[in-house]
Amino acid sequence: MAAAEPKPPAGAAAAAARRLARGCWSAFWDYETPKVIVVKNRQLGVVYRVVQLLILLYFVWYVFIVQKSYQDRETGPESSVITKVKGITSSEHKVWDVEEYVKPPEGGSAFSIITRIEVTPSQAQGTCPESVRVTNATCDSDEDCVAGQLDMLGNGVRTGRCVPYYHGAFKTCEVSGWCPVEDGASVSQFLGKMAPNFTILIKNSIHYPKFRFSKGNIENRKDNYLKQCTFDEVSHLYCPIFRLGFIVEQAGENFTELALKGGVIGVIINWDCDLDLSASNCNPKYSFRRLDPKHVPASSGYNFRFAKYYKINGSTTRTLIKAYGIRIDVIVHGQAGKFSLIPTIINVATALTSIGVGSFLCDWILLTFMNKNKVYSHKKFDKQDSTLTDPRGLAQL
Amino acid sequence: MAAAEPKPPAGAAAAAARRLARGCWSAFWDYETPKVIVVKNRQLGVVYRVVQLLILLYFVWYVFIVQKSYQDRETGPESSVITKVKGITSSEHKVWDVEEYVKPPEGGSAFSIITRIEVTPSQAQGTCPESVRVTNATCDSDEDCVAGQLDMLGNGVRTGRCVPYYHGAFKTCEVSGWCPVEDGASVSQFLGKMAPNFTILIKNSIHYPKFRFSKGNIENRKDNYLKQCTFDEVSHLYCPIFRLGFIVEQAGENFTELALKGGVIGVIINWDCDLDLSASNCNPKYSFRRLDPKHVPASSGYNFRFAKYYKINGSTTRTLIKAYGIRIDVIVHGQAGKFSLIPTIINVATALTSIGVGSFLCDWILLTFMNKNKVYSHKKFDKQDSTLTDPRGLAQL
Amino acid sequence: MAAAEPKPPAGAAAAAARRLARGCWSAFWDYETPKVIVVKNRQLGVVYRVVQLLILLYFVWYVFIVQKSYQDRETGPESSVITKVKGITSSEHKVWDVEEYVKPPEGGSAFSIITRIEVTPSQAQGTCPESVRVTNATCDSDEDCVAGQLDMLGNGVRTGRCVPYYHGAFKTCEVSGWCPVEDGASVSQFLGKMAPNFTILIKNSIHYPKFRFSKGNIENRKDNYLKQCTFDEVSHLYCPIFRLGFIVEQAGENFTELALKGGVIGVIINWDCDLDLSASNCNPKYSFRRLDPKHVPASSGYNFRFAKYYKINGSTTRTLIKAYGIRIDVIVHGQAGKFSLIPTIINVATALTSIGVGSFLCDWILLTFMNKNKVYSHKKFDKQDSTLTDPRGLAQL
Repeated sequence: MAAAEPKPPAGAAAAAARRLARGCWSAFWDYETPKVIVVKNRQLGVVYRVVQLLILLYFVWYVFIVQKSYQDRETGPESSVITKVKGITSSEHKVWDVEEYVKPPEGGSAFSIITRIEVTPSQAQGTCPESVRVTNATCDSDEDCVAGQLDMLGNGVRTGRCVPYYHGAFKTCEVSGWCPVEDGASVSQFLGKMAPNFTILIKNSIHYPKFRFSKGNIENRKDNYLKQCTFDEVSHLYCPIFRLGFIVEQAGENFTELALKGGVIGVIINWDCDLDLSASNCNPKYSFRRLDPKHVPASSGYNFRFAKYYKINGSTTRTLIKAYGIRIDVIVHGQAGKFSLIPTIINVATALTSIGVGSFLCDWILLTFMNKNKVYSHKKFDKQDSTLTDPRGLAQL
Repeated sequence: MAAAEPKPPAGAAAAAARRLARGCWSAFWDYETPKVIVVKNRQLGVVYRVVQLLILLYFVWYVFIVQKSYQDRETGPESSVITKVKGITSSEHKVWDVEEYVKPPEGGSAFSIITRIEVTPSQAQGTCPESVRVTNATCDSDEDCVAGQLDMLGNGVRTGRCVPYYHGAFKTCEVSGWCPVEDGASVSQFLGKMAPNFTILIKNSIHYPKFRFSKGNIENRKDNYLKQCTFDEVSHLYCPIFRLGFIVEQAGENFTELALKGGVIGVIINWDCDLDLSASNCNPKYSFRRLDPKHVPASSGYNFRFAKYYKINGSTTRTLIKAYGIRIDVIVHGQAGKFSLIPTIINVATALTSIGVGSFLCDWILLTFMNKNKVYSHKKFDKQDSTLTDPRGLAQL
Repeated sequence: MAAAEPKPPAGAAAAAARRLARGCWSAFWDYETPKVIVVKNRQLGVVYRVVQLLILLYFVWYVFIVQKSYQDRETGPESSVITKVKGITSSEHKVWDVEEYVKPPEGGSAFSIITRIEVTPSQAQGTCPESVRVTNATCDSDEDCVAGQLDMLGNGVRTGRCVPYYHGAFKTCEVSGWCPVEDGASVSQFLGKMAPNFTILIKNSIHYPKFRFSKGNIENRKDNYLKQCTFDEVSHLYCPIFRLGFIVEQAGENFTELALKGGVIGVIINWDCDLDLSASNCNPKYSFRRLDPKHVPASSGYNFRFAKYYKINGSTTRTLIKAYGIRIDVIVHGQAGKFSLIPTIINVATALTSIGVGSFLCDWILLTFMNKNKVYSHKKFDKQDSTLTDPRGLAQL
């Protein structure tokens, strides 16, 4: 206050500072509230309240009730899947059990059920005609075949000879490798006859670490329930035993076609949990979907090759098996939500701010459309022209 | 302004529009600030400031310090896991090494350590009595057995004959398939005697793509440290070599029981990183948990079947092995946070809005409980009745 | 109003309550708007508008355009990966095909391409000298070997005898187990000569469940395109066929070194999708990274052991193979964003609140630095001293 006065005595300055500090301290405890103009206009009031109501409704209904924005969320629970396939099937001369048609055998979340095989028995390292499917494999004479050449998509190193093919009247280049080659000697066998009746048990348990919540998808019962039941969404939700035929059907696929060409089916388990409710409201939801690109012509289907190795009289032979099958990928996802202060407060604060937005609209109506807007404007706005000289203002500083 | 006047000359209208535009432009640069009433009431001021302080404290302490809401977050890092088991064990007549008891051998994030096996040696395709465990397998005469019938949970196609069982005095239907069936000829072997001393090396490295941050769980030392150390949370955090017995114990399980029946143990590695601090503050946290549902009676434990195929004199035989084991699932999760403007601003704006909430409370106290509320009300609210005719307002439009 | 008067007749009280309710109801429909002081000061107005503009720019440009904060987000899509390796390679005396060098064969998202092997042929259960690498395995006489001792990192149970080693002039303790032990009899073979030319087809399809959006990484063409093409980021993005050499090179590794010691390469597919645009704007982005800790001396590289079991004259022998290889981990991640009301409103509300922050600054300038601040202060703040007795206020309650 007195700081601008020329050369005050030190004591006076200190006293002034003290007085200023006391004033500030006192002012700190004053309560300030904006001055408000009340406009007694029913139309404007109705508009104002209706806008406020709409915003409020939106927040209460959509943001809080539908979207549960008051919850903290966690996605991607820790998950463990154990699977077990049961069933037997028969081809022409043989009975196949689980050990033979499920690969890999460990019962993880991804496994293949082999439905058709092309067997090339008794392959051994040696020389034989190259497959006709390999580019430039057909030949007329030895000159067409370059010795030592190795085609990346072929079956071996060329020996430089041109030899008659396995069947038919033409010739192909001879290769050194696993002989005979697959295309020349393989025999097809269909295992899928009984496959729709195979049962798959999918044990899944999930854990949301943030909320310390765990749950499994399997009924905890002492009786023989799990030996007899089959999955049903309504009556047997906690009996995760699925017929393979059911899975394929739910995925909208034709079983025979799938069994012949192979494919990947996803069993998607979704744990969408509102942990503000009791644990019994947190249930798995199963869905089934074909995962591989079915309509891509060049590489549709699913197959892989494996072999069984034998040693006969000291030399190694193998049975090469090209297996077409249905791969089952168990995919677990989910999200859990639980009440938490931070998202609640952020959303409440947003709601309050948004309700205030109603005022903008009404101020604009008030000042633009109302008959007496000049009057209101005059009342609302207290004009203070800084170009007018104000003796008191100047005197102060 | 002049637009409502009847037929103004074009020049006058243009001049009016110009004047209006100039007025708007000038008004645009006016500064507007709400008019405020200062209430010199110490009680109300204290309430106001205390409410503000509480809200501020909540935001500063809980939202910013505890919850670190000023950070952008990323969950679910890219992760790579390489595992390697070491150790040997012995059963009655045989020594087992890693190659035999770890399946699959590739050292991925999920693998099984076989602790007990039931071996059915020398199975071949042929005919033999069905297992007694299969429904309706027991019979008195051939009439009880339907030829060609195939039980999904059985071991083969029935031949129609009723034959004496492997042991005991009863008979079961004969089946065609892999013979002899498991229940009739299997021998149990326990491999788990030394299993608690097996060591498992778990190499894990993670990468948060959003923050371009990578880290591994293994000490980078030149000496023989990793050949000798064992994991210890305090002194050897970066030596990820775990005794199997330690893992099972930490998961709260009994080793012998688990080794007999099998089970799944999760090794959960949690990378919770505050990337505003230095990289050395971002450390893995290990926890161990039984993942399969232990108390579900019908399907407890963990086992799977695999076989070794042999060719003897041209005919195929196999050794079927039902393996019980401890499956280890290494699950990696985590979240990283780093300062980011957007969440900071959202939370600061929320804080400011929330501090304003204190005014609602104090306005309500001011207008309801204070002795002089009519006066304050009179001062705060400037009533403007729209039903009063205002000649100036009418004149304007 | 009249409630404080002594003993009003019941009728009067009811009438007063009615009047009060009617008053409240009428007041509810009043529109309230804060009274505003307009300061006609060009400097202050410019500061005010510039601050507002900066805040607005930040929100419009950074928050909405760069960060797309108006979008709801989903990370971690459901993903399915099918892989297929093609190519052949040759070592000294043998041609290797895919079946032999890819483990596991099922074509999942993680697989190893074996580039070097150490073969220990014809192992059988028996007795032989322990490896010299095992601690305390070397001996001078039988007294140095304790019968029945089993070293966890050794190869068998000690028999108590001290026998000459496979080669060299020293002796080691005899063990009972799979004999001969690996270190004594293994032969190394390098398969990696042609390995850089192996091709890997990676079929990947993803699904964002929240937005019901699916896409694959493979061109849907009827012709032979996929049989001929190789991946190229610019011209062949939808031809996911990668040369192994290309992958290793992109990961910044030396192929020969990697092939000898083994390692893990991550093929990371990132699907970053703005679903407000058309589906053709959502494309996979491939990156390649070495995942295992390369510089950790004690355990660098990647290898695993598997065996082939044979039965010769009734006794089991095996060929143990220590395989070094390149493990490919296909890691799929991504995030999708789509316009959603809730984040939009939260961010708009934050923007409005933040724009209001400009007023704080200008109020402070107004009241502190302006010449006439006392005048403005006087105009803005309407002081109301609660210590002054106000007869009207007292009279009311």
